[in-house]
Amino acid sequence: MAEADSVAVIGLGRFGRAVALELMASGTEVLGIDGREDVVQDLNGQLTQVVRADATKEESLKQLAVHEFDRVVIAVTGDIKVSILCASLVLQLGNPVIWAKATDEQHGRILEQLGVHHVVYPESDMGRRVAHLVRGAAKDYLEIDAGYALVKAAVPAELHGVTLGESEVRRRHGVTVAAWKGGNGSWHYAERETVLRTGDTVLVVGPTKRVEAFAQLR
Amino acid sequence: MAEADSVAVIGLGRFGRAVALELMASGTEVLGIDGREDVVQDLNGQLTQVVRADATKEESLKQLAVHEFDRVVIAVTGDIKVSILCASLVLQLGNPVIWAKATDEQHGRILEQLGVHHVVYPESDMGRRVAHLVRGAAKDYLEIDAGYALVKAAVPAELHGVTLGESEVRRRHGVTVAAWKGGNGSWHYAERETVLRTGDTVLVVGPTKRVEAFAQLR
Amino acid sequence: MAEADSVAVIGLGRFGRAVALELMASGTEVLGIDGREDVVQDLNGQLTQVVRADATKEESLKQLAVHEFDRVVIAVTGDIKVSILCASLVLQLGNPVIWAKATDEQHGRILEQLGVHHVVYPESDMGRRVAHLVRGAAKDYLEIDAGYALVKAAVPAELHGVTLGESEVRRRHGVTVAAWKGGNGSWHYAERETVLRTGDTVLVVGPTKRVEAFAQLR
Amino acid sequence: MAEADSVAVIGLGRFGRAVALELMASGTEVLGIDGREDVVQDLNGQLTQVVRADATKEESLKQLAVHEFDRVVIAVTGDIKVSILCASLVLQLGNPVIWAKATDEQHGRILEQLGVHHVVYPESDMGRRVAHLVRGAAKDYLEIDAGYALVKAAVPAELHGVTLGESEVRRRHGVTVAAWKGGNGSWHYAERETVLRTGDTVLVVGPTKRVEAFAQLR
Amino acid sequence: MAEADSVAVIGLGRFGRAVALELMASGTEVLGIDGREDVVQDLNGQLTQVVRADATKEESLKQLAVHEFDRVVIAVTGDIKVSILCASLVLQLGNPVIWAKATDEQHGRILEQLGVHHVVYPESDMGRRVAHLVRGAAKDYLEIDAGYALVKAAVPAELHGVTLGESEVRRRHGVTVAAWKGGNGSWHYAERETVLRTGDTVLVVGPTKRVEAFAQLR
Amino acid sequence: MAEADSVAVIGLGRFGRAVALELMASGTEVLGIDGREDVVQDLNGQLTQVVRADATKEESLKQLAVHEFDRVVIAVTGDIKVSILCASLVLQLGNPVIWAKATDEQHGRILEQLGVHHVVYPESDMGRRVAHLVRGAAKDYLEIDAGYALVKAAVPAELHGVTLGESEVRRRHGVTVAAWKGGNGSWHYAERETVLRTGDTVLVVGPTKRVEAFAQLR
Amino acid sequence: MAEADSVAVIGLGRFGRAVALELMASGTEVLGIDGREDVVQDLNGQLTQVVRADATKEESLKQLAVHEFDRVVIAVTGDIKVSILCASLVLQLGNPVIWAKATDEQHGRILEQLGVHHVVYPESDMGRRVAHLVRGAAKDYLEIDAGYALVKAAVPAELHGVTLGESEVRRRHGVTVAAWKGGNGSWHYAERETVLRTGDTVLVVGPTKRVEAFAQLR
Amino acid sequence: MAEADSVAVIGLGRFGRAVALELMASGTEVLGIDGREDVVQDLNGQLTQVVRADATKEESLKQLAVHEFDRVVIAVTGDIKVSILCASLVLQLGNPVIWAKATDEQHGRILEQLGVHHVVYPESDMGRRVAHLVRGAAKDYLEIDAGYALVKAAVPAELHGVTLGESEVRRRHGVTVAAWKGGNGSWHYAERETVLRTGDTVLVVGPTKRVEAFAQLR
Repeated sequence: MAEADSVAVIGLGRFGRAVALELMASGTEVLGIDGREDVVQDLNGQLTQVVRADATKEESLKQLAVHEFDRVVIAVTGDIKVSILCASLVLQLGNPVIWAKATDEQHGRILEQLGVHHVVYPESDMGRRVAHLVRGAAKDYLEIDAGYALVKAAVPAELHGVTLGESEVRRRHGVTVAAWKGGNGSWHYAERETVLRTGDTVLVVGPTKRVEAFAQLR
Repeated sequence: MAEADSVAVIGLGRFGRAVALELMASGTEVLGIDGREDVVQDLNGQLTQVVRADATKEESLKQLAVHEFDRVVIAVTGDIKVSILCASLVLQLGNPVIWAKATDEQHGRILEQLGVHHVVYPESDMGRRVAHLVRGAAKDYLEIDAGYALVKAAVPAELHGVTLGESEVRRRHGVTVAAWKGGNGSWHYAERETVLRTGDTVLVVGPTKRVEAFAQLR
Repeated sequence: MAEADSVAVIGLGRFGRAVALELMASGTEVLGIDGREDVVQDLNGQLTQVVRADATKEESLKQLAVHEFDRVVIAVTGDIKVSILCASLVLQLGNPVIWAKATDEQHGRILEQLGVHHVVYPESDMGRRVAHLVRGAAKDYLEIDAGYALVKAAVPAELHGVTLGESEVRRRHGVTVAAWKGGNGSWHYAERETVLRTGDTVLVVGPTKRVEAFAQLR
Repeated sequence: MAEADSVAVIGLGRFGRAVALELMASGTEVLGIDGREDVVQDLNGQLTQVVRADATKEESLKQLAVHEFDRVVIAVTGDIKVSILCASLVLQLGNPVIWAKATDEQHGRILEQLGVHHVVYPESDMGRRVAHLVRGAAKDYLEIDAGYALVKAAVPAELHGVTLGESEVRRRHGVTVAAWKGGNGSWHYAERETVLRTGDTVLVVGPTKRVEAFAQLR
Repeated sequence: MAEADSVAVIGLGRFGRAVALELMASGTEVLGIDGREDVVQDLNGQLTQVVRADATKEESLKQLAVHEFDRVVIAVTGDIKVSILCASLVLQLGNPVIWAKATDEQHGRILEQLGVHHVVYPESDMGRRVAHLVRGAAKDYLEIDAGYALVKAAVPAELHGVTLGESEVRRRHGVTVAAWKGGNGSWHYAERETVLRTGDTVLVVGPTKRVEAFAQLR
Repeated sequence: MAEADSVAVIGLGRFGRAVALELMASGTEVLGIDGREDVVQDLNGQLTQVVRADATKEESLKQLAVHEFDRVVIAVTGDIKVSILCASLVLQLGNPVIWAKATDEQHGRILEQLGVHHVVYPESDMGRRVAHLVRGAAKDYLEIDAGYALVKAAVPAELHGVTLGESEVRRRHGVTVAAWKGGNGSWHYAERETVLRTGDTVLVVGPTKRVEAFAQLR
Repeated sequence: MAEADSVAVIGLGRFGRAVALELMASGTEVLGIDGREDVVQDLNGQLTQVVRADATKEESLKQLAVHEFDRVVIAVTGDIKVSILCASLVLQLGNPVIWAKATDEQHGRILEQLGVHHVVYPESDMGRRVAHLVRGAAKDYLEIDAGYALVKAAVPAELHGVTLGESEVRRRHGVTVAAWKGGNGSWHYAERETVLRTGDTVLVVGPTKRVEAFAQLR
Repeated sequence: MAEADSVAVIGLGRFGRAVALELMASGTEVLGIDGREDVVQDLNGQLTQVVRADATKEESLKQLAVHEFDRVVIAVTGDIKVSILCASLVLQLGNPVIWAKATDEQHGRILEQLGVHHVVYPESDMGRRVAHLVRGAAKDYLEIDAGYALVKAAVPAELHGVTLGESEVRRRHGVTVAAWKGGNGSWHYAERETVLRTGDTVLVVGPTKRVEAFAQLR
């Protein structure tokens, strides 16, 4: 799948706004659509184009040529009816790959039944991720697959001053160190010869239980 | 910071619910608190304890001994007033480390002015992360620090059938492969001798631009 | 398609209620489902079973074994969201053929995108049919296909006292008389030897314009 | 009763709109009246005249010369009070034959007590008709009188390749075939010499039970 | 028309309540009906029977045998729909003479079109009567017919101490004195020999302008 | 009290409107005040002056010189607060005699405590008067004092063809006939020599019970 | 006026509650009345008696013998209608001296027109008092009369260590020191021989401008 | 703390308005801010500057240079969320000393946790003060500290005609007379030689119980 040159983001609440601004920062062209005048004015000049329009009207979407965009993100908030109506219309228009935000499982299932390609659940996904931050000692956490995760953690004392090769982290903790950040604040690949220091931060990959246990080390 | 043995989650909407269930799955004791009877009944038996209570009343929080928990997650939804009232009370009770969900920046700033330790913005954070999935070819994306990221991506043709050591991925693409998943669906550490195949999936770490470019390779 | 032995009707407003009662009168088993207590009590004893339940909850539909019915009629009124949620769930349950009432075209299209088998528009369909009654002289009207219709009309003077064969209705008016009702109030097939009288009523089939013109005859 | 040259349709919701457009398609002049600006604009150019007016004000109706129309259709939706006020006024104006849509039996009875000539119940009428489509195998269904109906059905195997005269449909099934549609999609009168084929469609008239049984034949 | 032995009063707001209590005081049997529990309790024991019921339901009215009363007063307040529904039902039940309160002219006309026998407009009627009290010097005022009225007024000086016969009131003022009340507070017929005193009160009948002028005399 | 030359009517609902129009018809100058634009426009040209103003603002009342009118009628409807605020202000302005409409007894008592000169209860007063029309045979009824009333009634058979003097109405029925209307539709004083006919109408004055009994005579 | 032995406080919002609790603390018997169940329960046991009742109903007030209390405080919040209705009723009951809280000037004037003895404006009064604290250096401020005030202020350097007599405060600053509080936190009368120290607090009385200027001294 | 030259008052309800106007009267410059157009217009010309702005927006506060004022009074009414948002923003802007009105204790505590310097509770404070006026005989009352108060009271008979020195008020009643007002309406310091008269008013300072007892003297 080629990189998207242009994305239409429908709904510019907190989620849609963050998607749109991050896309702009990555150099993608973004058309933002929202029904609220103040939201549109607020983002004016920050996106390639921002338009006030009713995204549940076929004419509006056609006029804005939404179907000519590579991807469409449906990020409308509030009533799920609006999200479904909008998704139904964009699907009828054809072409683009569609991402849509769902507020709950049933909403997500309807979007999938309609044919939406990617369904996202911000609240639940973040909830799961935050759970690992809350309970543990990790500085950041991402579940990569069921049972396999990445954590950002402080370097434990036992790794201080030895090369990663000598430390036998993989054997003893069942995890691999992918990268590290030292006192100067920039990240480096972790190599066999890398010597870490307490105070440094590491990215560690491995089975969920193992990486969480690793993050507990002092 | 030691691993939390017990967490109180106040507010069991989509976010709070996901936090609580994920904590339970990780073996942490969880007290769930919400004002809505149906929410409480729905989670009954799935958390260590679920209680219907008004989290803006000092008496309620005291009775539930919220201050004896290691951590408190304030995940109340809707009116930010409720979130602020609740945070104010938990802070007066003392002890626990507090995580709170903010709906926008101003809300987050108030929580911090009050003294909340960790403020989370699920909608904006997910929005930023989804932006990278939308525009690119990555299967998953996590920004680890400003300018440094992890992506989950398909193995490009050029890596097929050679060892990682020979492939010179680091030199040519400026990224490091941390782990890989083959046809059997389980993850392995990437080692110098690892031989990848198209169809496999890799976890790649490196500067944001570089990992995104890597995910575009075919 | 075999005759349905059992039909579940979800939503017992004016439309759903009429469907359910007419099915009972035809000897079909009917399970009626509605969320309003008074509606359920009012139909109690008039359907095989009437149950108060929330048709947007998967558990409710499973408990009522909705998937074991031959057909399901989704006749919920009001917010189209409820209709869509309910249709989504019944489709996931599998088996039955689904009929659903739509309030407008967009609603209808979403139901079809989801996979609903038959979509009905009571207000628009009746509107079109009533238009022909309003403008013309027909006693009843049904469009059978685009441009082909049936009307119930009074026997015009020119047909009085002659056999249908002699009257040459087909040649002169381009329509065929299918049945007739005489003074005793019961219907008979129209045969070549049938002799009609002014005061009798006939069912006439043919191109829309021709049957409407026929109904104008005096 | 002569064909109507001009009809005023008051209330342009789904039902009124369908009445008005179908009348236009039949060549009748139509004045459409509704209180909502967007509804009026939407139909502008599609009816002879569309006007925004309050149909519960005597002056409005007089100004629009509603009493000079042959027929008036009162299709207002929502509160039955508006329907009653409007009907009362049109009746005081005199002349036209009035059709009105009722939402329930009590509403219909009041309209009749006031003197409205024809009362229509779209939801209930369509409900009864749909019931026969749901339960049976008919493709369309119209009850012509109590106990006498018309169905559109597939030609059963037993009629394949014989003339209607030889098939003895009337004797064996108690119904008469009024018309048929072959592979080319156009309708023809059924005659004694007509030879049907499976795959063709027939219009069948007869007692309700008999035509429904006929539609079940395979 | 014989005196009513029994009256049903439907709606016990200020107007209905006053009707019901005054009827009781006159020795008539009164059934009071209202939908509000507090209103019913408040009048409990003050009417022959007071019942809480929904007067827009046919069953309610039948159960209360409203049709067996001599007269029915429909005094429901608020939405005119309720008044119309109720009037429609009582008219269908048959028998009684119906009085109904209208809130405005259009409401009154609908009630009359339905067949209500007497329509009353308390606000307008009282308004007209009060106008004469406001502008003039009369103590009470009743228009008996267009242009003919009764006033209650103070005895003017010119009538003091002479017999009514001598005073020539009719000739000089065009009015007739029907009754008078002296210092002891009880009323008497005015006779030719009656001698009035300033301080006494008189009932005067005559053309509207003349009785109003008479009331101005000092 | 001299006749009022000018009256300000505040609140132009059904009651206030009737007061104002009747005063105009009697030749009094009327200033009408209401907060609703449509009400003001509707009465424009029918009163000496009609103004849209907020009658709970001191400035408004001063600007309109309400205190220079002879009398003020406060006929505001809806919330009694508005009536009280307005009465309070007019009383502070000084001069005029104030009439005010009360919705119930408590409202009336507050108006009197404030110092309003005349309090009127249209609903209750009309209710009491209508009660006598409902139960009896009178054509109109007015209670003049406790226990003393006037009725308009048909002439009973026993008075037909004899002079009032001979009929001994006073002795036999305890009432006095004040006026009568014959077939030509105009009213006359009743005199000793007056000869009535069945079909004529009489105004009768006397004790409440007696006049009601008289109205029952056939 | 003798000290009140018993006070009824109607309305237990923030203001009424503070009045009631302070009265209890001063040894007065207090009956608290409010319409809200939670408010009543919350104060239960803290007042002599707390009752849930509707203070706009005459029966309620009579049953609670409100008229036997020495004083009544009407502290109802929200709609001024409730305050007026309640004041009207208590005034009709007779006896007690009434204090009432007004929300604005017009409300206050109506209460006075009705006959309420003391009207209080908490928001405006506190606003005026706070203004002096905001702008100046005083620790507390009370305007005793127009242009004459009391302030609580820090002792300025110039008064340190000399007797009040010697300091000539009156002559130099136009104010009088009434009392002082030293390091031990208790208050004493200011006498000619009193020696103050910086760090002490004084109560100073005098013309508003002078006492404010005194509070600025350092 | 120096006298404030300029104060911004945010929220111009009854409390804020009184603060602002009193400050103006004392010669302080006042910027008034409120979101309601009518409130702003009403105070236009009465404050140094009055502006309509949304005080929960950072830009608004910056534009108005709120941080350049010596003091800020946050007097917003209604939802405490607005008060908190506004306080949070003003605190971030830095400089000024902040006074804020709290509606209840929890609100007040949050304001203090945020860092607001002075929290005021107008309703409760006035309630406590009024309690002493209600129960006692004092004409005014201010609690200066716990257990120490000032009252304004009538001069009792025992002080009539003797010098304050001779009267031994301090010894006998435990209070000190700070000032007095005679028949001419102006206040004077109380001195040893002052001779009071019944009819005069005195300011008395002392322990709460003693000054209240003194106010009871006759």
